Amino acid sequence: MNALFLEESLAVLTRTPAALDAMLRGLPEQWTAATEGPGTWSPYDVMGHLIHGEKTDWMPRVLIILEHGPGRLFEPFDREAQFRDSQGKPIIGLLDEFAERRADNLVQLRTLDLQPAQLELLGTHPALGRVTLHQLLATWTAHDLAHILQVSRVMAKRYKQEVGPWAEYLSVMK
Amino acid sequence: MNALFLEESLAVLTRTPAALDAMLRGLPEQWTAATEGPGTWSPYDVMGHLIHGEKTDWMPRVLIILEHGPGRLFEPFDREAQFRDSQGKPIIGLLDEFAERRADNLVQLRTLDLQPAQLELLGTHPALGRVTLHQLLATWTAHDLAHILQVSRVMAKRYKQEVGPWAEYLSVMK
Repeated sequence: MNALFLEESLAVLTRTPAALDAMLRGLPEQWTAATEGPGTWSPYDVMGHLIHGEKTDWMPRVLIILEHGPGRLFEPFDREAQFRDSQGKPIIGLLDEFAERRADNLVQLRTLDLQPAQLELLGTHPALGRVTLHQLLATWTAHDLAHILQVSRVMAKRYKQEVGPWAEYLSVMK
Repeated sequence: MNALFLEESLAVLTRTPAALDAMLRGLPEQWTAATEGPGTWSPYDVMGHLIHGEKTDWMPRVLIILEHGPGRLFEPFDREAQFRDSQGKPIIGLLDEFAERRADNLVQLRTLDLQPAQLELLGTHPALGRVTLHQLLATWTAHDLAHILQVSRVMAKRYKQEVGPWAEYLSVMK
């Protein structure tokens, strides 16, 4: 079960950069800069957030669990870092950087050759407390999907007025 | 504004097949067959639905508006057709068919060389009543995004238990 879980998660983690690339590369800025209102993120902001996760969140936490166990707290993740780090970069550069960092991280993850029992190893999240390596890898995977969801939602809502009476049939517009 | 609208919509409509292909091609069936429960759709079902839309919904309605105007009702769209038409086909075949039909439809749409004034032409939806060509094209676009959203939501929710305490941070799990 755990071996299957790892391959399933990797199947998604591997595909996310290409999925976002297909959606966003070359897309007019009206789409990539669109938000759901003040304080919400655009597809561009999401890409910066995903890059920051590759740099500071997922694999570093995997390594903390493997090297230190639950005695060492994870570094808190800065959910707003992209507003400093990515500002002004073209989105094409962000798509490339995300793809490269993700590929590097998945090579590193595969090299660890995690065995089912290791997935039950514990770490300590600064706010959530005890978590397993299994839960961390599942969250990395679900987090990708949640942000593809967010990108498509932000873009769809841009057409809330444009669709006229069809809004009734599109639950995303509600 | 309307000329810009058409190019913006085409930018999304053109990208959708590649986005879904990147997410779903070669993905383990545990993901592509996952649903949100009885009566809800899997990513596989969504692909069949999108193909049916290419065959019977979007471009046929564009042509009804251009050729007949509001006097001719659109054919009602069968939202369940994929359960007859696609059943048993491998998802790779559905991804290919969707990409081909979409490409053909967008060639046809571009060939029409729609002018801004034409986007205000009226059609009659069997349930919603009067709609414009502009609204129809906007809905085609938003409908793509709504189904990318659905695919990512269905997949993410498959890991609701797997993510453990992180579910609290993932609004898709609520």
